[in-house]
Amino acid sequence: MEDKNDFTLSCPIPISEYPQILLAHGGGGKLMHQLIEQMFMASFANPALMARHDSAVLKVQSKKIAFTTDSYVVKPLFFPGGDIGALAIYGTVNDLAMSGARPLYISCGFIIEEGLPTETLWRVAQSMKQAAENAGVTIVTGDTKVVDRGKGDGLFINTAGIGEIAHGLTIAPSAVRLGDVLIINGDIGRHGMAVMAAREGLEFESAIESDCAPLAGAVMNLLEAGIQIHCLRDLTRGGLASALVEIAEAGSIHINIEEAAISVREDVQGACEILGFDPLYVANEGRFIAIVPEAETARALDILRSDKDFMRGAIIGRVTGGRPGIVTMKSRIGATRIIDMLSGEQLPRIC
Amino acid sequence: MEDKNDFTLSCPIPISEYPQILLAHGGGGKLMHQLIEQMFMASFANPALMARHDSAVLKVQSKKIAFTTDSYVVKPLFFPGGDIGALAIYGTVNDLAMSGARPLYISCGFIIEEGLPTETLWRVAQSMKQAAENAGVTIVTGDTKVVDRGKGDGLFINTAGIGEIAHGLTIAPSAVRLGDVLIINGDIGRHGMAVMAAREGLEFESAIESDCAPLAGAVMNLLEAGIQIHCLRDLTRGGLASALVEIAEAGSIHINIEEAAISVREDVQGACEILGFDPLYVANEGRFIAIVPEAETARALDILRSDKDFMRGAIIGRVTGGRPGIVTMKSRIGATRIIDMLSGEQLPRIC
Repeated sequence: MEDKNDFTLSCPIPISEYPQILLAHGGGGKLMHQLIEQMFMASFANPALMARHDSAVLKVQSKKIAFTTDSYVVKPLFFPGGDIGALAIYGTVNDLAMSGARPLYISCGFIIEEGLPTETLWRVAQSMKQAAENAGVTIVTGDTKVVDRGKGDGLFINTAGIGEIAHGLTIAPSAVRLGDVLIINGDIGRHGMAVMAAREGLEFESAIESDCAPLAGAVMNLLEAGIQIHCLRDLTRGGLASALVEIAEAGSIHINIEEAAISVREDVQGACEILGFDPLYVANEGRFIAIVPEAETARALDILRSDKDFMRGAIIGRVTGGRPGIVTMKSRIGATRIIDMLSGEQLPRIC
Repeated sequence: MEDKNDFTLSCPIPISEYPQILLAHGGGGKLMHQLIEQMFMASFANPALMARHDSAVLKVQSKKIAFTTDSYVVKPLFFPGGDIGALAIYGTVNDLAMSGARPLYISCGFIIEEGLPTETLWRVAQSMKQAAENAGVTIVTGDTKVVDRGKGDGLFINTAGIGEIAHGLTIAPSAVRLGDVLIINGDIGRHGMAVMAAREGLEFESAIESDCAPLAGAVMNLLEAGIQIHCLRDLTRGGLASALVEIAEAGSIHINIEEAAISVREDVQGACEILGFDPLYVANEGRFIAIVPEAETARALDILRSDKDFMRGAIIGRVTGGRPGIVTMKSRIGATRIIDMLSGEQLPRIC
């Protein structure tokens, strides 16, 4: 059981005095400065941030950088296996990693609804601090806004990230070739179902935990071993299916995957059936596919599986000679069907 | 009078079919892809963005970069002289400029409330496109989230930005020296009062227009002329007073300003009096101070005023031998008072 008091005790803003965030915490005056200093500076302490300038001044070694952003509006803010803070760090780190970049610097923009418990914000900040340490990135700049009660939903976080690109590869759908192999780093569907179960108050025998994790380490290992990666994609909104359709369309290639090779945990499958979802379309936050030349598949898989979190890495399909722009899946009983992009929305606000 | 039909006609998403943004526009499926392609890709078209990768791959010439972020929650979305879109570009461009960086790349994260008129989003996107062109920056990566009706407030935008630093100066409060001179680029208080007047439905003889503008050009002109800038600061939330107090505290210096030298337009002064605000604390979105050595003041002022938008640039004060960390102001009648940081909030949601 979680001990809420730990967070209350460690928060440097006196909870008894400011139990909730006020509009004034975003107004540019003393309260905002106190919030930034005691909440964020204290948590993320580093020289670039502590310079307290309008922008962070940073060094980069490479002349090629990756730049990405994501806003996080997940509901609820905390769910088994993660929370909005960890998600905001890992999600952006993972988008950088998908370009083969080494993530370095993160910015954070907080949009807080008036009335958010101060302790909640502190817990999220602590989670971000831990996630940044896990992923080897530094939070160097940020912004805090407070909106009126009823004009937000507790907390939204935007992060942007900068990474350095040291490799000379083109990692993109356009680089994918006939015969290439698709490798995944584990089972699918856990993040989306963890959030949905928490949101709907569903009780399973054991809680489904989000797969929320940083992926840059695994990608760096593959690159440093010289694997000629053709494409990388993390399997977030829209899940595995949408990611594959995007790649097939962008690269004008045909992808065929095997249902039997795709791992879905029994509890996730059960939750999907109860709630009427297809795990192929459910979001993950710690899963990606690497598309590599066939000759390098075995070595890539070994490297991937050497990470204890990704021991269930597997080959799930290939780039074949079928109709370009189309993804097909061979079912367990041998039938082949077309995998389409999701129409409309399946799981809103899972990230 | 504004012709709304122009925007309806030019929007590539069929307004009759999708008059409002739906939750599905943020779900990772077909509608989200359509929104991104037809709304944002069509508006911001450039090679880095069109690569449609998880992150943009970019070149930088310098090994020293500036990185910043801001979320924009201004209410209303449109106000005389600007809108949330222009603000989101100029605000981040200006934060980069305040490090003496040349702004290059911008990321955009949209948090849209379900039900936002599609045409409103299109108008904002067109304004961002125009602002990016004016400021010489490229929107290279983005993200779109949709939250349930009643859980947002129409539209929030986060931007992050990257700029290159070519100069070798330290531009920071720590570089400010006794005898340095404070230069401002124009009158104060217009942005905050323009937004407040629009929000409160106040009618003045003529509408107060926001001063919302990009500042990087003016800063680059000063740097390229070799002006030894010691500190730069834009006068956003908290206004001129808060910016000066921050600098005085961070640099352990004493700043004295002259009330008579600070320009406030008559209509702005009038609106401040009606609404009970002090223009010193009202936010600007196109105003900054440069702190420069006395010997370079005249040349710096000439360069600043050569920009037709900043012809009213003026000297407003000096770094003097008074108590460190304190800002004082000499009034029109000769009395001197301490300028403190704003307590609480004066003008919420003006950016």
